[in-house]
Amino acid sequence: MEFFFDPQSIALIGATANRNKGGYSILANLKKGFNGTIYPVNPKYPEIDGIQCYRSVADLPDTGVDLAIVFVPAKMVLDVIEACGKKGIKGVMIESGGFAESGPDGISLQNSVTKTAKKYGVRLWGPNCMGLVDAVNKNVFSFVSPAIWDDLIFGDVSLIVQSGMLSGAFLIDLMTHKVMGISKVCSIGNKMDVNECDLLEYLIHDDNTKVIGLYLESIPDGRKFASLCQKSEKPVVVLKGGRSEKGARAAMSHTASMSGNGAVISGALAQAGVIEAHDFRQMMDICRTISTFENLDLTKNMNTEKNSGKIAILTYSGGAGIISSDFMEELGLSLSDLSSQTLVRAKEVFPEWMPISNPVDLWPAVERNGAEKTYVTIAEAVMADPDVDAVFIHCFAGGFKLDPDIEALAKIASNAKKPMFCWLTGEQNAAMSFQIKAQKLGIPVFRELYRSLECMAALFSCHKNRGKIEKEPVFHEKIILSDDLLAYINIPDNNIDEHVAKKILNASGIDTIDEALAISSEDAGKKAEEMGYPVVMKGLLPQEVHKTELGLVCLNIDTEQKAADTFDKLIKKMNGKGSVLVQKQVQGDLELIVGMVRDPQFGPCVMCGFGGIFAEILQEAVFAVAPLSHKQASALIDRLKSKKILQGFRGQKPLDMDALANILVKLGRLGTDFDNIAEIDINPLIISKGVPVAVDAAIVTSRKLSTCA
Amino acid sequence: MEFFFDPQSIALIGATANRNKGGYSILANLKKGFNGTIYPVNPKYPEIDGIQCYRSVADLPDTGVDLAIVFVPAKMVLDVIEACGKKGIKGVMIESGGFAESGPDGISLQNSVTKTAKKYGVRLWGPNCMGLVDAVNKNVFSFVSPAIWDDLIFGDVSLIVQSGMLSGAFLIDLMTHKVMGISKVCSIGNKMDVNECDLLEYLIHDDNTKVIGLYLESIPDGRKFASLCQKSEKPVVVLKGGRSEKGARAAMSHTASMSGNGAVISGALAQAGVIEAHDFRQMMDICRTISTFENLDLTKNMNTEKNSGKIAILTYSGGAGIISSDFMEELGLSLSDLSSQTLVRAKEVFPEWMPISNPVDLWPAVERNGAEKTYVTIAEAVMADPDVDAVFIHCFAGGFKLDPDIEALAKIASNAKKPMFCWLTGEQNAAMSFQIKAQKLGIPVFRELYRSLECMAALFSCHKNRGKIEKEPVFHEKIILSDDLLAYINIPDNNIDEHVAKKILNASGIDTIDEALAISSEDAGKKAEEMGYPVVMKGLLPQEVHKTELGLVCLNIDTEQKAADTFDKLIKKMNGKGSVLVQKQVQGDLELIVGMVRDPQFGPCVMCGFGGIFAEILQEAVFAVAPLSHKQASALIDRLKSKKILQGFRGQKPLDMDALANILVKLGRLGTDFDNIAEIDINPLIISKGVPVAVDAAIVTSRKLSTCA
Repeated sequence: MEFFFDPQSIALIGATANRNKGGYSILANLKKGFNGTIYPVNPKYPEIDGIQCYRSVADLPDTGVDLAIVFVPAKMVLDVIEACGKKGIKGVMIESGGFAESGPDGISLQNSVTKTAKKYGVRLWGPNCMGLVDAVNKNVFSFVSPAIWDDLIFGDVSLIVQSGMLSGAFLIDLMTHKVMGISKVCSIGNKMDVNECDLLEYLIHDDNTKVIGLYLESIPDGRKFASLCQKSEKPVVVLKGGRSEKGARAAMSHTASMSGNGAVISGALAQAGVIEAHDFRQMMDICRTISTFENLDLTKNMNTEKNSGKIAILTYSGGAGIISSDFMEELGLSLSDLSSQTLVRAKEVFPEWMPISNPVDLWPAVERNGAEKTYVTIAEAVMADPDVDAVFIHCFAGGFKLDPDIEALAKIASNAKKPMFCWLTGEQNAAMSFQIKAQKLGIPVFRELYRSLECMAALFSCHKNRGKIEKEPVFHEKIILSDDLLAYINIPDNNIDEHVAKKILNASGIDTIDEALAISSEDAGKKAEEMGYPVVMKGLLPQEVHKTELGLVCLNIDTEQKAADTFDKLIKKMNGKGSVLVQKQVQGDLELIVGMVRDPQFGPCVMCGFGGIFAEILQEAVFAVAPLSHKQASALIDRLKSKKILQGFRGQKPLDMDALANILVKLGRLGTDFDNIAEIDINPLIISKGVPVAVDAAIVTSRKLSTCA
Repeated sequence: MEFFFDPQSIALIGATANRNKGGYSILANLKKGFNGTIYPVNPKYPEIDGIQCYRSVADLPDTGVDLAIVFVPAKMVLDVIEACGKKGIKGVMIESGGFAESGPDGISLQNSVTKTAKKYGVRLWGPNCMGLVDAVNKNVFSFVSPAIWDDLIFGDVSLIVQSGMLSGAFLIDLMTHKVMGISKVCSIGNKMDVNECDLLEYLIHDDNTKVIGLYLESIPDGRKFASLCQKSEKPVVVLKGGRSEKGARAAMSHTASMSGNGAVISGALAQAGVIEAHDFRQMMDICRTISTFENLDLTKNMNTEKNSGKIAILTYSGGAGIISSDFMEELGLSLSDLSSQTLVRAKEVFPEWMPISNPVDLWPAVERNGAEKTYVTIAEAVMADPDVDAVFIHCFAGGFKLDPDIEALAKIASNAKKPMFCWLTGEQNAAMSFQIKAQKLGIPVFRELYRSLECMAALFSCHKNRGKIEKEPVFHEKIILSDDLLAYINIPDNNIDEHVAKKILNASGIDTIDEALAISSEDAGKKAEEMGYPVVMKGLLPQEVHKTELGLVCLNIDTEQKAADTFDKLIKKMNGKGSVLVQKQVQGDLELIVGMVRDPQFGPCVMCGFGGIFAEILQEAVFAVAPLSHKQASALIDRLKSKKILQGFRGQKPLDMDALANILVKLGRLGTDFDNIAEIDINPLIISKGVPVAVDAAIVTSRKLSTCA
């Protein structure tokens, strides 16, 4: 990928002397910042702005061109790629539109271009994109207006943006508002070859990038993407446009039906330690906050038991302080308990009558000592407090003599090695200058209280994740299934019945309810008697998944005679086609639903959710990508918002979390070891006296069998 | 209040010629806009800026002064008020600080000032406030910097802001960012006399105010405040800083323990049709959105069955369109289903291959027709669609030839009488101009997708509330209780026992479980036999609320003998002090907890929440201010987020909502009719076959009895 980011020479195909055209903007941007040789290509010009222009790609010197930037009408692109291939150019960045985004003809053109490039081993970036803006190395390989140079602030956040339009809009909005510096902005457009995975991998190893933000509309290879994020030592922030598409197949299982609406993507991202953003500026705000404090180790002082950073709030308005604290619990942050030593130090600037507590209302002290002295004195005191992980200052710029000495504050924060962040109101121009200055000094500024705290929460959660996300793939021994069981799995589009499904679960180490097939009414009675009452009896029909609806589930059978009678009734109902299962009936304290689904983007994924009445009320299910380590399975359970239900209430025994994690690990193994299993549903997984046991189960095989199974 | 808002003459006590002082700023602001006579008062000057200055209040002409603005050190204020009183000045606006906010001395000073003002019938505004800024009438009675005049845009949103500092910060921030015009900003400071209720009442009748926004840190007379909001025909938006304070008494009941954390305030505001904001700029954004469309009747076209406006999204980025739609469900909005006629009209500008759907990705059409034609054509088409309630356009300003013809768009929206709102990215200066222009044309602009939709949702919910909020107080006949029962209520600090509590509920028309006191073991057996098994037996000890913890609740008694034995056991446990209750044991489908609590700010309030396991898991309870009409009680139930539990699941009978609403109405009546009842708890209210019945209940009387009871 080096030839895209650090080429020694660039051919610009579609260069023009017409200053109103994009082809000129690209050239102007190259001239302004690019250090290597530029070869404009356009048969119309002998030279442009004093640089020699070439008639065609074929005419380029044979000394080697690293990168070609293509900005010619779509219909000419195929020939250009062919020529580039012949010339031995390694990378081509196609910024023109008119490909897959523009209908059937464009799709077929895009396919031809891809094919041609493959033939010559040319890597393609784009098409339909804004290319690359690298503010640190001053490589602007883009038709973005050269006016951008006036605002180009360099920083250490790099962005990968899928939408062509949005990447441009993003960039210009960000740069001209001057609140955030950037390293590289990669606009990836239609991703005909180079995609988010390639660029993420590059940026993970890029010295000029500390934080990576991505806006993506699709993640075709979700599995690879998640694995890259998981391995990344750099924080990754993702805004995913639109929800995950469901596979074409209608969901057979509860697990599959819960896998839409972004649940799988969110699960995979959380598992990989990615911070998920939900809006555009919010994503940028999170990125700049994290990058500002990337050199700090926030977990050092933090109470790592609780999932929170402890914040001291210094405000000029009691009300704003209270509203801030109101938000904190929701965001997993908490207020510091200021030590008596801190309070003594703070007392210096406060009137005697004033009781000091967190949030600290500075106003009475500001009135006596002025804003500069007050902010500095209190900031020093709270920054030194061991119970303070970060300081949140509220400032007003441009009036009321409230402006603090932001340089002194930044120094205090930097010495304490703790983050300071700021909520700002103010007169427009003063506020803008304050914001730029503060940001340069390492104090991120926000204009809304909630956003400030949201970004702080993201920062702490990012630091807490460090060292917790497993970087290495999970190793596990393959599950061995008997040939009998394999035979069921290797039938395409097979709804494996409950009894066989549980045999498969059993073989992989998941405990299932005591049950047996009965061969006659007499046998049914005998088995029921052996099992102990009450029992459930079920009629199993081949390929049938709706047992309850067909009246094939009989509960509360409590005598041998009833068991025998039920056998006859079920056999009759099934017209002699099915078999009859006798099963111990358990009354659980709680029902869960767990399962495995093969997601089109993320591959085998494990689900854990609530069953019974809670399934309807809470509609909560969390996903992770298989295989799972035991630790990852525990983290998955921990992501359930209503997890305290599992901890036992009203005197119930708490759930054996290890046992549940084990089941999830094994469901994941079944998914990774047997490509032909499409869906597994354990519904319900009944928790009885804290122990989970699979009471009903279904396994569905793939429509088209995998050859490697 | 007219003398505060429209005085003919103003005395400025503390006027100064020193341009660095607030006393000069007030004068400069008066000179700039105020139309009446100005009387500066300061013994140091014969005149200031050519206006005759008076030595003291006593020296003012006797022709009458309507309003005195006081900006002198706190210690001088008492004398000034005395002098103003003697002079017959009706209103005094004290802008100086140094009162209750500054410790014990300030509190006692504030009390003296209040007393003196009362003596003379002088109304006081402030102290510790920024006074009044009236942009429409150009009355700036405030020490805010005269530079504010450059930015003063008039509009029809009026604000009441409690915090002195924040009101100034708000105002300057808002004005200098030029995105919102205002009518009046009232900074009320310590509210020693004039408070939010007085000002709200004034603004409700003010012709220049269409929308009222309030930031409040305390609402001492919550009941009056809620009732004013409820009667207001103008939309009211409230940001409440901090949560409601609990009364000093420790909560005896579940109802009281749930009443903290803002639940009562949020309930009272929702009941009154108030839109609750949660952050500062968000509050302003909601206000400006609602005021922009105040002349429209949005419910005309809306599908009023669903709680949503139907939105058409026009975007230049497919991804932003999808992210917008993702937010909509959460906010109670939905995507319009565009009619075939609309699609045919849209087709005109789109390439043939392009399938058009909502959100409409304009890009392929923009490429063919340019932004201006595309936006206009599609906006016309969707605005004409009967399924479209509002149009959400995404714009980019300052590049990519994407700027739409915003004037033409505004005209289309205005002709269609439907709201149009805009999410904007762009080059800073271009974006700022675009925003100001669009806002003037009646298109509110936002910089974040979520905020845009949040404001739109607030707008629709505000219009849907119209005509639904009952403006008149609820009339009801008084509940009549027997003298026996009244006697219990009229004992102070009385924990009325379950049996008596249920008699009181019964007398007010709430159904309670079948039960009776047993006088002997034999009687217990007989009563159990009559009632039908199983029964519960409970030992009732005077003033004791923890029956279960003391082992005084015995369940599952199913024979006469057991009932008799249990009687003896309970009597023994209570050392012969208590009585024994025999009660029918019911197995419900669901448990609720309902109750009444006397809130220090809002008076008697009714609660409805979930009981049993759901109480612990969902922790959801909603409040409303009593008395409640049946309709208000239904609306209260409807505010439960998990209300679908009540609609019956897994084949259970749905709850009789009317019956539940009746119970809530009656709980409210008990609260309003009997001042001595402090708390009522029905826990559980068991729902059996859809019918609610009170199974356990507690009533606590007030610590200090009301004289009017």
